[in-house]
Amino acid sequence: MKYPLSIQNLISHFSQLPTVGPKTAERYVFYLLKQDPETLQKFALALSELKEKTTICQNCLAIAESDPCSICADDKRNKSTICVVDGSRDMMAIESIEKYNGLYHILGGVINAIEGIKEDQLNIKQLIEKIKKNNITEIILALNPDMEGETTAMYLTKLLKEYNIKITRLAKGLPMGANLEYADEITLANALKYRNEL
Amino acid sequence: MKYPLSIQNLISHFSQLPTVGPKTAERYVFYLLKQDPETLQKFALALSELKEKTTICQNCLAIAESDPCSICADDKRNKSTICVVDGSRDMMAIESIEKYNGLYHILGGVINAIEGIKEDQLNIKQLIEKIKKNNITEIILALNPDMEGETTAMYLTKLLKEYNIKITRLAKGLPMGANLEYADEITLANALKYRNEL
Repeated sequence: MKYPLSIQNLISHFSQLPTVGPKTAERYVFYLLKQDPETLQKFALALSELKEKTTICQNCLAIAESDPCSICADDKRNKSTICVVDGSRDMMAIESIEKYNGLYHILGGVINAIEGIKEDQLNIKQLIEKIKKNNITEIILALNPDMEGETTAMYLTKLLKEYNIKITRLAKGLPMGANLEYADEITLANALKYRNEL
Repeated sequence: MKYPLSIQNLISHFSQLPTVGPKTAERYVFYLLKQDPETLQKFALALSELKEKTTICQNCLAIAESDPCSICADDKRNKSTICVVDGSRDMMAIESIEKYNGLYHILGGVINAIEGIKEDQLNIKQLIEKIKKNNITEIILALNPDMEGETTAMYLTKLLKEYNIKITRLAKGLPMGANLEYADEITLANALKYRNEL
């Protein structure tokens, strides 16, 4: 004997989500079974509308409500600085600290030999077009400080050299609350290498 | 700047699920954004149909496709044995090993002082009705071997004593692959107490 088909069906949908296995999916479905039908209908509607109500901003390539997105359309933002990020979520992380007033460019990934993601699959052409057409003074490479992020940053630095723009990247060092004793070697080495004068 | 409303909306729905925080919900939503619209529509349909296509079997009280459910309606099952479980998921776990041929009774919870679940909130009345009406020879208490499960099992054992039925519970002992050295004290004590003759 198995679960009713409608339960099995929903379990298999939830199981497709990243990090969700059949047991977790089961847990989600049994939680939902306890909710009132209206909540479920709203959840279903939110799912079905997800794609319809979002678009891609053709300027920064972020997922947005409108094209251009509210950042690209904002006259108060500094249009001469572009922050290059992997995806929309990294953009949101930077936006959330409310310290950056420039524009963004979504790369749509990073160079990854293992997953077979090459430079020509990233939104690099659009970045270069932007640099050529606009008066850009700084490109901030805000990529993750890991193998793939570093490789991509190195590739972009080389590529963008000829345009004579200031290219920067996010600082490396100890995160807040870190413990020197437990910091990994690379982090500690970076913290020493990039030490600041007081 | 925030995510588009449709994304925020779906994130908040996913965040309601057990163990899912806003970051995980965000991850789910961004995964779904990459899927084709058809997949999303099917997922949404599965969600909205969840409650419509399931019912409660009025005999065993399990969530089922039909009432009575396929187990209660099955003539080949032994109707004189009832396995009492917390919920439908525990019933499914026992069904999956394909070693049990009796019926089930869903208790709908266990006595839990902390969460304020008392015996009168459980489906105990229905269990006693069943015992009175049918020729039941054995009640298997298949509750979790924790505080709440044990309390509930003790309560039921006392309550059912007067009906002169064999009352059993699942064996306690070492799980397969366990390591004596790392087994907790209670498990080890149970393994010793309930040791089997070879």
